[in-house]
Amino acid sequence: MTTRKYEPLSPETVAERLGAIDAIRARAGDPAAWSVREVGDGNLNLVFIIDGPGGSVIAKQALPYVRLVGEGWPLPLKRAFFEYNALIRQEARDPGSVPEVFHFDEEQALVVMEFLSPHVILRHSLMAGKRHAGLGGVLGRFCARTLFRGSDLSMKTADRKADLALFAGNVELCDITENLVFSDPYFEAEMNRHTPQLDPIVAELRADIDLKIAAQHMKSAFATNAEAMLHGDLHTGSVMVSDSETRVIDPEFATYGPMGFDIGMLIANFLMAYFAQPGHAETEGSRADYQDWILSVVDEIWSEFSTEFTRLWREERHGILYERALFEDQGHDLGAEQARLDRLAAIWRDTLGFCGIEMHRRTLGLAHIAEYDQIADEALRAQCEARGLRLGRALAVRRATITSMDEVLDLARHINQETIL
Amino acid sequence: MTTRKYEPLSPETVAERLGAIDAIRARAGDPAAWSVREVGDGNLNLVFIIDGPGGSVIAKQALPYVRLVGEGWPLPLKRAFFEYNALIRQEARDPGSVPEVFHFDEEQALVVMEFLSPHVILRHSLMAGKRHAGLGGVLGRFCARTLFRGSDLSMKTADRKADLALFAGNVELCDITENLVFSDPYFEAEMNRHTPQLDPIVAELRADIDLKIAAQHMKSAFATNAEAMLHGDLHTGSVMVSDSETRVIDPEFATYGPMGFDIGMLIANFLMAYFAQPGHAETEGSRADYQDWILSVVDEIWSEFSTEFTRLWREERHGILYERALFEDQGHDLGAEQARLDRLAAIWRDTLGFCGIEMHRRTLGLAHIAEYDQIADEALRAQCEARGLRLGRALAVRRATITSMDEVLDLARHINQETIL
Repeated sequence: MTTRKYEPLSPETVAERLGAIDAIRARAGDPAAWSVREVGDGNLNLVFIIDGPGGSVIAKQALPYVRLVGEGWPLPLKRAFFEYNALIRQEARDPGSVPEVFHFDEEQALVVMEFLSPHVILRHSLMAGKRHAGLGGVLGRFCARTLFRGSDLSMKTADRKADLALFAGNVELCDITENLVFSDPYFEAEMNRHTPQLDPIVAELRADIDLKIAAQHMKSAFATNAEAMLHGDLHTGSVMVSDSETRVIDPEFATYGPMGFDIGMLIANFLMAYFAQPGHAETEGSRADYQDWILSVVDEIWSEFSTEFTRLWREERHGILYERALFEDQGHDLGAEQARLDRLAAIWRDTLGFCGIEMHRRTLGLAHIAEYDQIADEALRAQCEARGLRLGRALAVRRATITSMDEVLDLARHINQETIL
Repeated sequence: MTTRKYEPLSPETVAERLGAIDAIRARAGDPAAWSVREVGDGNLNLVFIIDGPGGSVIAKQALPYVRLVGEGWPLPLKRAFFEYNALIRQEARDPGSVPEVFHFDEEQALVVMEFLSPHVILRHSLMAGKRHAGLGGVLGRFCARTLFRGSDLSMKTADRKADLALFAGNVELCDITENLVFSDPYFEAEMNRHTPQLDPIVAELRADIDLKIAAQHMKSAFATNAEAMLHGDLHTGSVMVSDSETRVIDPEFATYGPMGFDIGMLIANFLMAYFAQPGHAETEGSRADYQDWILSVVDEIWSEFSTEFTRLWREERHGILYERALFEDQGHDLGAEQARLDRLAAIWRDTLGFCGIEMHRRTLGLAHIAEYDQIADEALRAQCEARGLRLGRALAVRRATITSMDEVLDLARHINQETIL
């Protein structure tokens, strides 16, 4: 199969085409007994569940276009190569955090990997009002470990530069981020859409010069500040949860960029889920406690990120930056600690900036979130969305003056009480 | 010759090995009449002047090691490939600023290019007390044009990402910068040397935690902030001048990095030439006017850089950053102008940081400058060097609070009056 030209799989051809691969047979058993379903509900790819007598696996295959849009929006198959390369690096840097990869075929743009069961997409849990113990901790540590260990703080610089060059090839997916996240929401771009009741606030934001400058400064940081290998699309639709476990999936947008991008996007999606709760409440106010829980997860993500980043800084700072030869080895441990505080402060500012922009683009751009979209009452939906827009603006523009997570959460609570529209 | 394995040229073999190449014959004429001299006085390469009946050309060939040190310090031949790629990009971005390339042979690590005559290395002029009209303007525009046009402000992003990947291969030369510039000067690294009388101030600087943190923050920016294609080694030994012309040479350290790196290194070398003047004065005080001239060049470099950067921002901002669709096209020209001021302020801060570090490493590290080294009187040399160290410390640590070139030049004049040792 490795010499065969690219051809999309179908449920009917999966057993014939993948059945001879040992690594898959070893997990799924005899291909003659496989049952195959196509379950891709994402925007981009084919996803098959292969149920066999030995167990189940996932086969994810890229299509040469954006599935959501069709052949009119071509997208390179090579994204499977970037996803595979990101997955194996994330597994090495934070073992157990991502699905295990069993097989990769570059020509077929195919990754065969662990089937996560009974996991569900976190975003669905956040609509259903379901809690997951330890969620923020796992996600905070995932960010700290993959970002720290994917940077010049830890890697051999020749390895980092080789990886930088490798992921610089992920042009088209970066291009989607660069356009859809940072620019389109701030003018009347063709693919934008928003809830009609938001018109006045949308007009206000698109006339807001400070905000647009902030968005472009963040775009500049995303495009040029190659601090660490990012997941690149770390929202609550890229997280799968069970009662006991949290896993991160879908890193096809992986690229080198600023650490705050992953953390900021992740936090933004929790904050939007927070504002969306009135639209999912069984009775008025019934989600108040759940909203508090969501904010506690946001708090935990940052707190665990900075705790783990600090531990790694002290124990695994083996890269070319802030070398021990200059600090600890000279009895200047305090210098290394002060430098760490500077770095964390810079990551924090970036985190707030990216968080604010993500809250805008998920409301004003092409790709929205289910938590808002599934609120049938348009006026209520607009009210929830408007609150997210307001917080996003404050975080993006005031990222240098808001210095603690308490301030962010207070601001969220304050805005949540406001009637904006 | 293109299929021949790498072999260093010698004056005896140049005509035989290069004589058949049309592009060289076209400039130098009949190889039978060539006269060839090896003139490499740099640290790394072989440099031949080929004088023929048609004219003269330069053949620069990399050696597989650092010439200054010998075979014990291997260095990849591929640096010729990076030099060639940088030269043709600089020529495209600032026509006439670099030597014209006639021939490139990757296997032989060889670039054959324009022989600049009667140009001399700028560093020698700065010791001889010679003035060059318009020098700062040419250098400031060179920085603005190569940096702006080599960034996401101007390039197609796919082209920039491909170039980022290409220059990410220049690992070993970046490694030299990363170690020798940002780290070695701040502890007792093996290859360091300094004028003995500097011992007390060296001890002070190496115990200065704020300075070491600043140096490492700048190292982090150099290693990860891939803002633009840099020259990478833009000091006054990489500039050739005649009475009427200024050219920039030797971009083999080219890499993607922060714009302020090139500008800061360049300015640092002028400021060190300024402090070195008492060591080259014919009589005491005879170089006072010349010192003023050097400071006026520093002033002109930044002023011309920012003027040209502003022009390019307004006229050639065709990249993915700060798009017109968001600003000018919405009647928000002022937003684009404010964003430009933010960017210039960030480049300025970087410039000061890199400038300060360069002034340290050229006094405390492996690679020194002739302006200091050729001061025979050790006590006087140490006095000049100490002033440079003092200014460097102030610029690196106070890069966020010093906001104008006037402040930098006042500080330089103030320190120049001090008796430090």
